[in-house]
Amino acid sequence: MKCTRCKAPAEVQLRQHNSNFCRACFVFFFQRQVERAIEKERMFSLDEPVLVAVSGGKDSLALWDVLIDLGYQTTGLHLSLGIGEYSDASTDKTVAFANARSLPLITVKLADHGLAVNDVAGLTRRPACSACGTMKRHYFDQLAVDRGFPVVATGHNLDDEAARLLGNVLHWQMPYLARQRPVLQPTHERFVRKVKPLYRVTEYEAAVYAFMRGIDYVVDECPNAIGATQLTYKDMLNRLEATSPGSKLIFVQEFLQRAQPIFAAAPEEPPRTCVGCGMPSFGEMCGFCRLVRETETKRERRNAAKAVQ
Amino acid sequence: MKCTRCKAPAEVQLRQHNSNFCRACFVFFFQRQVERAIEKERMFSLDEPVLVAVSGGKDSLALWDVLIDLGYQTTGLHLSLGIGEYSDASTDKTVAFANARSLPLITVKLADHGLAVNDVAGLTRRPACSACGTMKRHYFDQLAVDRGFPVVATGHNLDDEAARLLGNVLHWQMPYLARQRPVLQPTHERFVRKVKPLYRVTEYEAAVYAFMRGIDYVVDECPNAIGATQLTYKDMLNRLEATSPGSKLIFVQEFLQRAQPIFAAAPEEPPRTCVGCGMPSFGEMCGFCRLVRETETKRERRNAAKAVQ
Repeated sequence: MKCTRCKAPAEVQLRQHNSNFCRACFVFFFQRQVERAIEKERMFSLDEPVLVAVSGGKDSLALWDVLIDLGYQTTGLHLSLGIGEYSDASTDKTVAFANARSLPLITVKLADHGLAVNDVAGLTRRPACSACGTMKRHYFDQLAVDRGFPVVATGHNLDDEAARLLGNVLHWQMPYLARQRPVLQPTHERFVRKVKPLYRVTEYEAAVYAFMRGIDYVVDECPNAIGATQLTYKDMLNRLEATSPGSKLIFVQEFLQRAQPIFAAAPEEPPRTCVGCGMPSFGEMCGFCRLVRETETKRERRNAAKAVQ
Repeated sequence: MKCTRCKAPAEVQLRQHNSNFCRACFVFFFQRQVERAIEKERMFSLDEPVLVAVSGGKDSLALWDVLIDLGYQTTGLHLSLGIGEYSDASTDKTVAFANARSLPLITVKLADHGLAVNDVAGLTRRPACSACGTMKRHYFDQLAVDRGFPVVATGHNLDDEAARLLGNVLHWQMPYLARQRPVLQPTHERFVRKVKPLYRVTEYEAAVYAFMRGIDYVVDECPNAIGATQLTYKDMLNRLEATSPGSKLIFVQEFLQRAQPIFAAAPEEPPRTCVGCGMPSFGEMCGFCRLVRETETKRERRNAAKAVQ
């Protein structure tokens, strides 16, 4: 098997692109895919400071690595989620990555706010992934606005986007379908642009890239994700991809080109301002503030019950 | 396990309906599902003669059985497709079903028109399922119009509809998404209404119904369908259904309610009239006439080549 680009012995086979690559050409290919996505979708320019949400996993660290190499101005934002040892390991890998390259990194520890994911999920009895998502979105938005970043980049890859799209389609979630794009423009003064530069590269490609670049990342899946519906969708799409390579890319690309504009044309209410935190909200109070309030109430009740015993 | 309806011992468990049924109650339930689909979607009335497309498989024979029991005026239409022994067996089962119940049946043998599916597919090198679909649609339409039936009913079940929807969505086939409904109103003077009264019942339910009613049907899958993409889609949806019972029904129902009207709103050209056969066509000549012409040309060439040898 020879490299499609330079005819050297190939190390990676990408069936969906009908291509094989040696190490150097794969790194070039991967970075070009990301660069093209950024440019074609006008995600951000070389002059704009970009806040990169980094979890410590392969996708976000690969993204950060590519952005540095392409010469973008980045600052990392890491939320230490409070999901036991998994979060400790994630924080360690993220800090080590930033330190080794002298990159600026903002770290927020949810436990310092009394909001460790496992505590919040336990107290409110919400699914952990739902609570986690609400808090991530809140801190990404808030920190970007407060620190003056016009754009937040996340490491969502093609598999993530295809799985999310499949989930939205299987339930015909119309407002989500209207908004699922690799670039989300702000619809409120306290929203910033949100972009997904890896939306055209697969999970496999991101893993290969991280490996080839010697990036040390958290290999374990989040323990809370076990049994998550998202994984069922990914499994369904992987089976299809095995039969018809390129299916995921076609699914997401054709959606963005043909269908999403039709969903987006349906009129939608712009977000209001949350009475709690002043961030954008689709109700009077945003999901984050409702979650925090519920967590506090439940915690007080639990503490009161303990005091009585 | 007790029958949800009458508390007798249950024989069938339907997880997606949170119900268990004894034999009598399942038959009642199945027939009610079909009756409701017919009434709610205004498929046809008790006064209208319905042409039922019957293949000899469980779905179409179950459909015919239900329609007879509900008192509708039906005539069967069977196309003997020319797919070797599979077609012979299908024709035998269909004729036996109709004879045993003294039902009117029209049978068309494609081989009599020089159009046996396997010959056409071999000569034109088209995928057999594509050639077969083109011919089925043509004869259903033409016979319905010529014999004065205002409506053709087919045995497509929920699994068929969900798989077709998934295929259309994975490629974002916009014109197909605009037209995928359980009732298709004619858009040309030589189109009749086409309806799918089984669109809310699963393949499994149709099989159980056929079994309980003692219907003798062709159990084998069509040999040409092996490896068909449709089966990959069905497999994907079956995996999802196993994790989340009811997923298929939600997928199809929510599509019809929320998304399909949006796709249908996109302007679409009405069909023209085929210069070959006078039936509706989206080009100058319809797919059937193009297929026939190609088959004839290839057959002449083959015969000429043989004569030379």
